[in-house]
Amino acid sequence: MPLPLDALAADAPGTTIVTDRAALDTYAHDWWSRLLMRRRAGEDLPRPDAVVAPADRDELVAVVRWAAANRVAMVPFGAGTGVCGGAAPVDGAVTVDLKRLNRIGELDEESGLVTVEPGVNAQTLENHLAARGWTLGHFPSSIHCSTIGGFVAIRSAGQASTGYGKLEDMVVGLEVVLPDGTVFAAAPQPQSAVGPDLKRLFLGSEGVFGIISSATLHVRPMPEVTLDRGFVAPDFRTGLRAIRDILRAGVTPPVVRLYDETDTAVVFSGQGIEVADGCLIITGCEGRQDVATFTEQVVHEVLSGHGATDLGREPGENWRANRHNMSYRFAEYFKPGGAFGDAVTLDTMEVAGTWARLPDIYAAVRAALADHVDLVLAHVSHAYPSGACIYFTLGAANGGDEVRALERYDAAWEAGQQAVLGAGGTGSHHHGVGLLRAPYLRQELGEVGFELLARIKDAIDPDGVANPGKLGLPRARP
Amino acid sequence: MPLPLDALAADAPGTTIVTDRAALDTYAHDWWSRLLMRRRAGEDLPRPDAVVAPADRDELVAVVRWAAANRVAMVPFGAGTGVCGGAAPVDGAVTVDLKRLNRIGELDEESGLVTVEPGVNAQTLENHLAARGWTLGHFPSSIHCSTIGGFVAIRSAGQASTGYGKLEDMVVGLEVVLPDGTVFAAAPQPQSAVGPDLKRLFLGSEGVFGIISSATLHVRPMPEVTLDRGFVAPDFRTGLRAIRDILRAGVTPPVVRLYDETDTAVVFSGQGIEVADGCLIITGCEGRQDVATFTEQVVHEVLSGHGATDLGREPGENWRANRHNMSYRFAEYFKPGGAFGDAVTLDTMEVAGTWARLPDIYAAVRAALADHVDLVLAHVSHAYPSGACIYFTLGAANGGDEVRALERYDAAWEAGQQAVLGAGGTGSHHHGVGLLRAPYLRQELGEVGFELLARIKDAIDPDGVANPGKLGLPRARP
Repeated sequence: MPLPLDALAADAPGTTIVTDRAALDTYAHDWWSRLLMRRRAGEDLPRPDAVVAPADRDELVAVVRWAAANRVAMVPFGAGTGVCGGAAPVDGAVTVDLKRLNRIGELDEESGLVTVEPGVNAQTLENHLAARGWTLGHFPSSIHCSTIGGFVAIRSAGQASTGYGKLEDMVVGLEVVLPDGTVFAAAPQPQSAVGPDLKRLFLGSEGVFGIISSATLHVRPMPEVTLDRGFVAPDFRTGLRAIRDILRAGVTPPVVRLYDETDTAVVFSGQGIEVADGCLIITGCEGRQDVATFTEQVVHEVLSGHGATDLGREPGENWRANRHNMSYRFAEYFKPGGAFGDAVTLDTMEVAGTWARLPDIYAAVRAALADHVDLVLAHVSHAYPSGACIYFTLGAANGGDEVRALERYDAAWEAGQQAVLGAGGTGSHHHGVGLLRAPYLRQELGEVGFELLARIKDAIDPDGVANPGKLGLPRARP
Repeated sequence: MPLPLDALAADAPGTTIVTDRAALDTYAHDWWSRLLMRRRAGEDLPRPDAVVAPADRDELVAVVRWAAANRVAMVPFGAGTGVCGGAAPVDGAVTVDLKRLNRIGELDEESGLVTVEPGVNAQTLENHLAARGWTLGHFPSSIHCSTIGGFVAIRSAGQASTGYGKLEDMVVGLEVVLPDGTVFAAAPQPQSAVGPDLKRLFLGSEGVFGIISSATLHVRPMPEVTLDRGFVAPDFRTGLRAIRDILRAGVTPPVVRLYDETDTAVVFSGQGIEVADGCLIITGCEGRQDVATFTEQVVHEVLSGHGATDLGREPGENWRANRHNMSYRFAEYFKPGGAFGDAVTLDTMEVAGTWARLPDIYAAVRAALADHVDLVLAHVSHAYPSGACIYFTLGAANGGDEVRALERYDAAWEAGQQAVLGAGGTGSHHHGVGLLRAPYLRQELGEVGFELLARIKDAIDPDGVANPGKLGLPRARP
């Protein structure tokens, strides 16, 4: 059945409708490595049947109602920089481009709240807030090239999340256009006990329960000072314990990072720093001058107590100066003649686990990945009282052989995910599921957990129009 | 149809089954004031048809399977000290007493985690942890008389939650027996991005999605020191701003409390302290000696900057010494000859809102309650970066007239809830919904939000056996 686009144009006159092939091709993928690799290999990727870009929230509602009435599958799309295929169409779908929903509401300085639409670029929001003396404190490495809606939909974390929390913890209010076109709104409240927190259902939902139309986020005054510093811990395991003990001491530096030996060597060689064995730790303390200074003193004491050596501010400041230089160029690495060579296998895998399990998770995942690729780097990027995230980078050169590049990619992911799940960790910390981790969802959530998710999906989206095939959910339920 | 209790006895041989009338009467109510008042007035309350107390988790599963197979409604019951009627049967139900599920698992000192069964008394857990040098940091005023399962099911907050978070934020893993007898388990993870956080659906679910069989909680080392202190702020509004600015300064004292003028007078007269006008603030800073001391210095500076006067440690230490003296006696106040007289109207109403809305919420709720009762006290009990909870106490003497006592109770609640919702707040911060707030759920969640909750209920519990009538959900869906 052809798409009833004329009816859409009538219902949503302010919505841009795109159907030309070249444009649709650019919506055939997000920044999931595997799709970029397949495209690089010359494969024709499934593309959406149309791309629609509503002008505002009311137009978005009209688009969703049209899709619901006509049983058209919808794929929400922000900046298209997700790394798990969540914004790629499976087949026979309309992609809903949300970039025109880019309004930033009035700043509530009393409460520290701002309401933003999903298409707002994360760095644009930071700039907007900075001009008023405020910050969201959400600094993912992809801040320049990604949108708030996408970050909310996949439970994003930023580089300062050890102190400020994951983005999901900053979402104080939420509005979602449900798959039937009705609008769910959770009013901004600091906390509540009026039943379960329903907005949490949409954080991490990746579009399968509807399309986020706005989020009210907690913001805070810009810190007076930022004090970055580098240390070297004797080894990774000691570094893990040291980081845990910083949090246990009762201070929360926004930034706490620990690099394994290989990643440390890469970072130091990139900065021209010569250090013998050990694992780099980067800390960033900020806030009022006295608070940041006190926090850094405690950090110093705890790390010294674990045998770490203070390297001064330079490694920390270098890290901060360069922290956003890589991610926005990610897609470039997959172009012919990219920085890492042709037919490169390249991705990151962020996992998490409790402190007790992290040493085993680290060893198991590292070994599993190293069986299939040439280079494995790892660093702890976000720490919590009960555990942390380990962020692996995997790379392999394949002598121009695209088939081998994909085979090694798939083998590395299968081995890495089995390793983390086998060691009691979680398969994703902040990149989400999309299509990439769909095969592992049933295993991680368990049969009952997965069936619960599927039952909720059926209850909210009985026709299966909302981002079908994502989160490992079947495209059509029986 | 008579209850098939013989079949239950066969399926769950270790489960205690109680059917004698006197015992059932004690399960006819929790500590919802309105039920205690009705009982005091001589009314015969709806009682469960039977009480079953499974010996352990496997027996609980057997009980739920039996209930599912026979379409028997189940009301989970911990210590029966909820204050909203959540543990009271509506009609034709079996109450599932969870107090025998009282195991405390091994302490994971590496990760700071402990797994506990729902029937564990909260003070017993604290004692268990204290003996090992640890604490949960969850100190509700009812700690002596309530269970962990109930606290998890209603999104409880403790008196130190400004620093340590609500209990829901300490739940790192969760196990729930779903209404069909299958077991949902969310493995303990510090954070994850593998779809939405499904365990959040059960925090605040009050039994309507199943029965919690264990929770894995984040615990922390016992603080080295606790530094309590009292201040007097010039007025309530200034006090609100001062509390907000403590958190904005980047420190989080576990305890921050602000009493309005009336509540201040009551507290001071109880302690024999003479202070002129103003509003009492209690702060409690704890942790390592240096961290607690630094935190208290910042608190002092911020409060002084808002014109608050330091009263020294005594008011703070008095508060701590007496903080658990009231709640465990709550039911006593409704006995004939109770401390507040016969036919007293007495309850608390905890609401929350953003900092921008709190002054209006305070004024509106206070005025609404004062229209119907004799005494209204209010204090801020828990503060967050974007807002706080205001905890109202309402009381009225009715000259022995029980009819009037109930009428004033109902009128006060109706007026108070309309006032807080009208001023943009949330109707409950940590007591939950139960039967008390059921009439306001649709209004607070909105039609779409309420329908979403109902759809999820249908998806998880199509036969409506799980705590029917609670959370404002219809007892049987069409």
